[in-house]
Amino acid sequence: MPTITANFAAGPAAMPKAVLKTIHQQLGRDIENGVSMLELGHRTAEFYKVRDEAKKNILDLYGLRASEFSVLFLQGGARLQFGALPANLRHLPKPAYIVSGHWSKIAYQEAQAVSSAEKVWDGEADQFSKLPTQVSVTGNPSYLYLTSNETIHGVQFPKERLATLGENLVIDASSDFLSYGFDWSKCAMLFACAQKNAGIAGVTIAIMRNSFIDQMDAKGLPLYLDYKIHREHDSLYNTTPVFPVYVTKVVTDWMLERFGSLAKVEAFNKKKAETLYTLIDQSGGFYKAHAEKNARSHMNVVFTLPKDLETKFAQEAKQKGFLNIEGHRFLGGFRLSIYNAIEQNQVDAFAEFMASFQRSQGS
Amino acid sequence: MPTITANFAAGPAAMPKAVLKTIHQQLGRDIENGVSMLELGHRTAEFYKVRDEAKKNILDLYGLRASEFSVLFLQGGARLQFGALPANLRHLPKPAYIVSGHWSKIAYQEAQAVSSAEKVWDGEADQFSKLPTQVSVTGNPSYLYLTSNETIHGVQFPKERLATLGENLVIDASSDFLSYGFDWSKCAMLFACAQKNAGIAGVTIAIMRNSFIDQMDAKGLPLYLDYKIHREHDSLYNTTPVFPVYVTKVVTDWMLERFGSLAKVEAFNKKKAETLYTLIDQSGGFYKAHAEKNARSHMNVVFTLPKDLETKFAQEAKQKGFLNIEGHRFLGGFRLSIYNAIEQNQVDAFAEFMASFQRSQGS
Repeated sequence: MPTITANFAAGPAAMPKAVLKTIHQQLGRDIENGVSMLELGHRTAEFYKVRDEAKKNILDLYGLRASEFSVLFLQGGARLQFGALPANLRHLPKPAYIVSGHWSKIAYQEAQAVSSAEKVWDGEADQFSKLPTQVSVTGNPSYLYLTSNETIHGVQFPKERLATLGENLVIDASSDFLSYGFDWSKCAMLFACAQKNAGIAGVTIAIMRNSFIDQMDAKGLPLYLDYKIHREHDSLYNTTPVFPVYVTKVVTDWMLERFGSLAKVEAFNKKKAETLYTLIDQSGGFYKAHAEKNARSHMNVVFTLPKDLETKFAQEAKQKGFLNIEGHRFLGGFRLSIYNAIEQNQVDAFAEFMASFQRSQGS
Repeated sequence: MPTITANFAAGPAAMPKAVLKTIHQQLGRDIENGVSMLELGHRTAEFYKVRDEAKKNILDLYGLRASEFSVLFLQGGARLQFGALPANLRHLPKPAYIVSGHWSKIAYQEAQAVSSAEKVWDGEADQFSKLPTQVSVTGNPSYLYLTSNETIHGVQFPKERLATLGENLVIDASSDFLSYGFDWSKCAMLFACAQKNAGIAGVTIAIMRNSFIDQMDAKGLPLYLDYKIHREHDSLYNTTPVFPVYVTKVVTDWMLERFGSLAKVEAFNKKKAETLYTLIDQSGGFYKAHAEKNARSHMNVVFTLPKDLETKFAQEAKQKGFLNIEGHRFLGGFRLSIYNAIEQNQVDAFAEFMASFQRSQGS
């Protein structure tokens, strides 16, 4: 097996080496001298500190106040939120959904199944390559739902639009969590599974405006789905996934140390994305990006090349140590997931490979 | 801080040193040369192997056939099962619940809240110190629910009773999972959070008779609560908690290597429990076990000593490196959780401390 040049997996994704080393070192020390993070109780002062630091890191990075927003650590993935959220608001006017890719489509379908929901925009006719600049909402929906970055189709809302599309925005930010700062004034809730930008699979982070939770009513639902209960218990209603939360703390510690602010994270990611999109745009049509220019994701660069060259491209990439570049099984083609842990030099190396591959085809 | 002699936490609990070392070593190797278990994708051949080996280990230990039983890896803790299970069977006659401690009481309350349930036995009047030898079930309940080991109150059903109490048994075995073999002929489902005997918080293992799942109907529920979906996708409906499942694989590998069979695990645990109960019984009333003799847990030894000596006992125990011996905040007193990872010599050391403490009080 060749050395790994870059693991471009969409999630669970590559983590920063520094984070992995911190976790490895602490585990080594604790095996000898203490209670390891794999054994630590959720009702211990040591874990409260881990949880509170993770919460503080996340609020600080987004510039939010703990008095306005609760940070919850939940299980069940972003997927469980798809059903739990509309179920908690069944007594209010139906929510509005922007369907801009695979994940928002599923979230919309699930909202319809557990209560009812209105679709206010749908990009499927354009193979989910575009995004709306505005949507027409009727009545007074309990929330307006969108997926800020669609991992499979590689479309991402420009951050400026998150404050202009509507009120009570609920954002599934699973694949662009903590990758840029934005104006939260219209945002009621943002949630993200951890395994792309913030840790490992097993914990989902929900940042919820307290006034939004106040409106909820979970009567008749399994209690684990009751956001008020999770807020009341500060994510300790039942056994918190201690180790996944700890990993999120280490990742956000690293972010603060490495970048210091989301503005810097954003610039870092923008440069990586532009490196790839520029190469694609200058390839004379050899490479084609799936997303329209003004909807392109800075996290998942989805592209195609001539169909008959796909296997060769994949094989040569693998030989050069580039892992997990295949597109999602629903879409095909290729996808480079370039989350916060991916370095500019890894992207440069892939861009060089792409250019060289194209030249070798004489095109 | 003194060296740790034993971590008697009730869960998240101590893990075998050999397991911690395996995980630490593999993480170290992978940071240098590969994709670590913290980054591994859930839809990879490597993870399928981990999942399948964990499933096989569990089925093999219990002597079950994969054609009859499905093993599911779920999130949300045992707690989410409390609500999800009755919700999946709302269309059938109401289930029957044995309330024998804190956890079965909560499970019963939740079943009542999401559908309806009948309580067929209640031990609360006896402070949950006893267990029924038989229960009277009316009609044809969709299942008969019990908690095989009540972690807080330290009561555990003798394993022989699990085949005689009724049909379609559903067992919450969170705190005695994989600690003894038993006759599964009447068992429809057994579930357990991993963080006591089988890994870390973040994954719950459900072993479900396929004919039991076949009866379920999850219409209108959030899809994550649909057991049929999880079975259909072989625990890959959404992102599986990869690392927690991997830890469960390493723990069950260790069990097979160290013990080979649940009969040996049972004997190992029985001896530890008897060491402590014998000392308690021979203390002339200085130490008192909470549970009646025929209901005593081999996993959680719950006892009291004269109230005015509690603080001194706790302090001296701590000085000798015994951690987490306090009883649950709902009950007080003391509790030693002696799961599979706790060695006989750790229990012997604590028994010696108990005897010496009593002598030092001149009683």
